[in-house]
Amino acid sequence: MKNGRMKEEVDIDMDKDNGLIHAIAQDYETGEVLMLAHMNEEALRLTIETGKAYYWSRSRNKLWRKGEISGNEQLIKEILIDCDGDSVLLKVKQIGGACHTGYRSCFYRRINGEIVGEKVFDPEEKYGKRDGDSDSASSASAEIEQKQEQEQEP
Amino acid sequence: MKNGRMKEEVDIDMDKDNGLIHAIAQDYETGEVLMLAHMNEEALRLTIETGKAYYWSRSRNKLWRKGEISGNEQLIKEILIDCDGDSVLLKVKQIGGACHTGYRSCFYRRINGEIVGEKVFDPEEKYGKRDGDSDSASSASAEIEQKQEQEQEP
Repeated sequence: MKNGRMKEEVDIDMDKDNGLIHAIAQDYETGEVLMLAHMNEEALRLTIETGKAYYWSRSRNKLWRKGEISGNEQLIKEILIDCDGDSVLLKVKQIGGACHTGYRSCFYRRINGEIVGEKVFDPEEKYGKRDGDSDSASSASAEIEQKQEQEQEP
Repeated sequence: MKNGRMKEEVDIDMDKDNGLIHAIAQDYETGEVLMLAHMNEEALRLTIETGKAYYWSRSRNKLWRKGEISGNEQLIKEILIDCDGDSVLLKVKQIGGACHTGYRSCFYRRINGEIVGEKVFDPEEKYGKRDGDSDSASSASAEIEQKQEQEQEP
C-alpha cells in the first residue's frame, strides 16, 4: 500500500561512517543511477536548503558542489532516506553529464569493461586540458573540479 | 554515443574502504533503487558466479546472501561498475521486497519522514516474531536474517 500522508520519525545516522552518509544520485525522469558519493551534515543541509547537490570529498576532506566549475549541476527533485538512515537517494535533474569522464552516468561500463553508457560531453572541453596548455588560472580551477569529480566517491 | 562493443580495462578498487566496495541494487525493469549495501571480493565473485546477490555485513563481519531465509532474493540481470571502480550497480529482479521492514525498497521515506514506498510483505510473517513466540529454531534463523537485512548496510 502506498501512503504519502503517513510519517515516520527519521533518524539520520552520521556515526556509522565517521560523520558521513552515502548519497546516490538518480535521474528523476529516466531512473538512471548517475553516481554514488558521500555527504556530511553540512553537505546534506546545503543540498536541502539550496536545492542543488553538495557532497563531501573523503580524499580531500572538503565540501564540494556538484558542477560548481563544469556547470554540470544536479537540481534536487526529491530526497529519500533508507531504512537505517545512513544513505540518501537524490532524485535529480542532471545538467549535462554526472561523470568526470564525460559520460552521463559514472556507471557507464559493465563489470567486464564493456561500455554501455552514453558520452554526453568532452571532459577536456569542460575541465580544460590537464597539461595546462590553456589559460593557466581556469585550467587550474578546472583541474580542481575534475579532480573533485574524479574523486567524488573516495 | 552508445557503444556496447568498446571495452575498457576495469580496475576494481577494494582498497579504499577496507576491502569493500559499495553495491546499489536497482530493479532492472522499473529502475527503482532498492537498497545500498557492501561487497567484499568474495561477495562480488559469488554474485557473478551464481547470478544471485551476495553482500558483506560490515557490522557482523559476515558474508550473506540476500533472501537466504526470507526468499526475497535478488536475481542479477546486469552488473555495472563506476568510473573509479569502487561501486557497483546491480540491476536485479527483486523477489518480494528488498527491505527488512516489508517495503519494496529501503528508500521508502522522504527525508521529512513521509512514507512514499510500497509495503509488499509483512516482516513478522517472513522473519518470524522477534519475541520468539513461534518455533524457536526457525524464529532464531529468522531473527538472524532480519538482523542481517536490517544491518544490510552497516
